[in-house]
Amino acid sequence: MKIARYTYNGKTSIGLVRDQLITNIDALLPNADLVDVGTLLGNPQAMAAAREVGLNDHNSVALNQVKLEAPILRPGKFLALGMNYKDHEAEALRLGVAIPTSQVWFSKQITCINGPFDDVHHPAVCERLDYEAELGVVIGKGGRRISEQQALQHVAGYFVANDVSARDWQAKSPTWTLGKSFDTHGPIGPWITTADEVADPQQLTVTLSVNGERRQHSSTELMTYSIARQIAYLSEVMTLEPGDILITGTPAGVGIAMQPQVFLQAGDVVRVEITGLGYIENTIVDEPR
Amino acid sequence: MKIARYTYNGKTSIGLVRDQLITNIDALLPNADLVDVGTLLGNPQAMAAAREVGLNDHNSVALNQVKLEAPILRPGKFLALGMNYKDHEAEALRLGVAIPTSQVWFSKQITCINGPFDDVHHPAVCERLDYEAELGVVIGKGGRRISEQQALQHVAGYFVANDVSARDWQAKSPTWTLGKSFDTHGPIGPWITTADEVADPQQLTVTLSVNGERRQHSSTELMTYSIARQIAYLSEVMTLEPGDILITGTPAGVGIAMQPQVFLQAGDVVRVEITGLGYIENTIVDEPR
Repeated sequence: MKIARYTYNGKTSIGLVRDQLITNIDALLPNADLVDVGTLLGNPQAMAAAREVGLNDHNSVALNQVKLEAPILRPGKFLALGMNYKDHEAEALRLGVAIPTSQVWFSKQITCINGPFDDVHHPAVCERLDYEAELGVVIGKGGRRISEQQALQHVAGYFVANDVSARDWQAKSPTWTLGKSFDTHGPIGPWITTADEVADPQQLTVTLSVNGERRQHSSTELMTYSIARQIAYLSEVMTLEPGDILITGTPAGVGIAMQPQVFLQAGDVVRVEITGLGYIENTIVDEPR
Repeated sequence: MKIARYTYNGKTSIGLVRDQLITNIDALLPNADLVDVGTLLGNPQAMAAAREVGLNDHNSVALNQVKLEAPILRPGKFLALGMNYKDHEAEALRLGVAIPTSQVWFSKQITCINGPFDDVHHPAVCERLDYEAELGVVIGKGGRRISEQQALQHVAGYFVANDVSARDWQAKSPTWTLGKSFDTHGPIGPWITTADEVADPQQLTVTLSVNGERRQHSSTELMTYSIARQIAYLSEVMTLEPGDILITGTPAGVGIAMQPQVFLQAGDVVRVEITGLGYIENTIVDEPR
C-alpha cells in the first residue's frame, strides 16, 4: 500500500494511493488525530482493514486534486545517519572529512518536517544551503535489542527524504543538529510505501536533481551500514517505537563536494526520487521574516 | 506553582505540590492524555485555574504517599547543551577537549526520559557510565526568532535533570546522541517549578552527590551562555513549542574528569539538587535483559 496524508477541500486526511486516485481511510482511525500515518502503521487491525478497502468502498478523488502533506508529522524520533554511502565517503575524504568507524547518528528536530511539495526556506542566516537525497524508513513494530536478522520485520514502510543541510551551521558544531533542523528543512513523502511492496530496500536507485540537472544518482546497495544493521545498532541503545523515522544517509554528489562548490539559491527546484517510492520536489524560497 | 505528574492508587495524574501535599488537578485538563505537564503549561486558561485551586478544593494526598513520575514524557524536543559552564570547560581542557566557539546542542532521544526516583540502567554494553547535573527548562510559549530580551517570557518553568552519559558510546560519534540516549538515561523532575517562583535562573546552586559524596557543586551564574541566549540562538534556527525541554549544561565534577576517573556502578545512588527546585535521586542498576 501507499499511504498518504493529504489535504482536500480544507480537510487533512489519511488515504490510500492507487491508480492516480486517493481513497480516504480516516474512518479506519476513528479516534486518531491524523497527524501521522504512523498511527495507522502501528495499528495492525487498521492496517488489515486498509488492505480490504476497495476503490469504490470509500470516497476517492483524483490524486492531482489533493495537496500531499508530510506523511508523518510528530514522530517520537527523527534520526539521521551521516556518511553511509561508499561513494559519499570518497568525496568526503577529498574534503578532508575523516571516515567514521561506527554509525554516526544525529537528530533532525521534528519541527523541520515539511511536505513533499512544499517550499524549503533559504534562511537569511545561512550562506551554504545544501541537499541530501535519502531513503527514509518508518518503524512499524517497536523494540529494543532487535537482531540484524529480525530488523526488517520492524519496518512498516519507506519514503523519500531530502536532508536539507545548512552547511555553515553544521560546521559550527560537531553534533550537527542545528545545521540540520531549520524549519522546513525536512521534506518527506510523497507517501509511505509499505514494506511488502519493496522487494529489497538495499537495491533501490536514489536520484536527486536541481533544476532538472542530475546531481546524485546511486544505489542503496552502496550503503556502508544496511538498514538492518542500522536498526540493530540503534536498538542496542534505545527503544524504537512505531512511527519513529530514520533517514539512512546520502550518496555522492552533494553541493559542498562539487568542484567548485555549489549551494542552493532561491528559485532552485530540488527533486528526489527513489525507485518504487515516488518523488518529492521542493522549491527553495527566501524565508519569510 | 510546583506541578508534578504522579501515580497514586495505580492512576497517573497531574497535581500541585504544596505543604507536603499533592492536589489532583486532572479536572482542569478534561481532554488531555496527561502524559505531559507541558499540556498544562501550554494552556493559559488551565494555568490560571490551577492557581485558584485551594488545598481543600480537590482531592489531596500526602506527597510521601505517591510515586512521582517524569513531569514531561513526550516532548517535541529534548535538547541538551554541551560544555556550558566555565568550571566544566576548565576540566575539559585538562582532558584535551577543545572549547567550542558556539553553542553545542545535541538531542537526547525522548525514550530515555525517566522518573525522578526511578532506577537508571547500567547497560551491559557500556563501560564508562557518568552523570551530569543540569538545570532543565520547559518552554511555555513557543516561537521563532525570540530575542534574548524576550526569551525568559517563553519559559514556563524549571526542573532538575541528570544528563546520564555513556562516555564510551559518546566518544564513538561526535554527534553524541547515542551515548546520551540509552533508555532510562534522562531522569527529570521532581516536578516543574513555574518560572514566577524562580527569581533569577542564573543564580541557582546545582549540587550532585554519589552515595552522599559531593561531586558537583556550582552556580548557574557560571554558564557561558545564559538561558536567554540559549533560547535566542535555538530559535534563530527552529520553532520552539510549548512543552519542549532544554537541559542547559553541566558544571565541573563529572566522573570522567576526576583524577583518577571514576564511573558509575550498580548500587550507586546519584542525587541532583537545585536551589528551590527540589532534588531527584536515582539508583544505578544493571539493566535487566
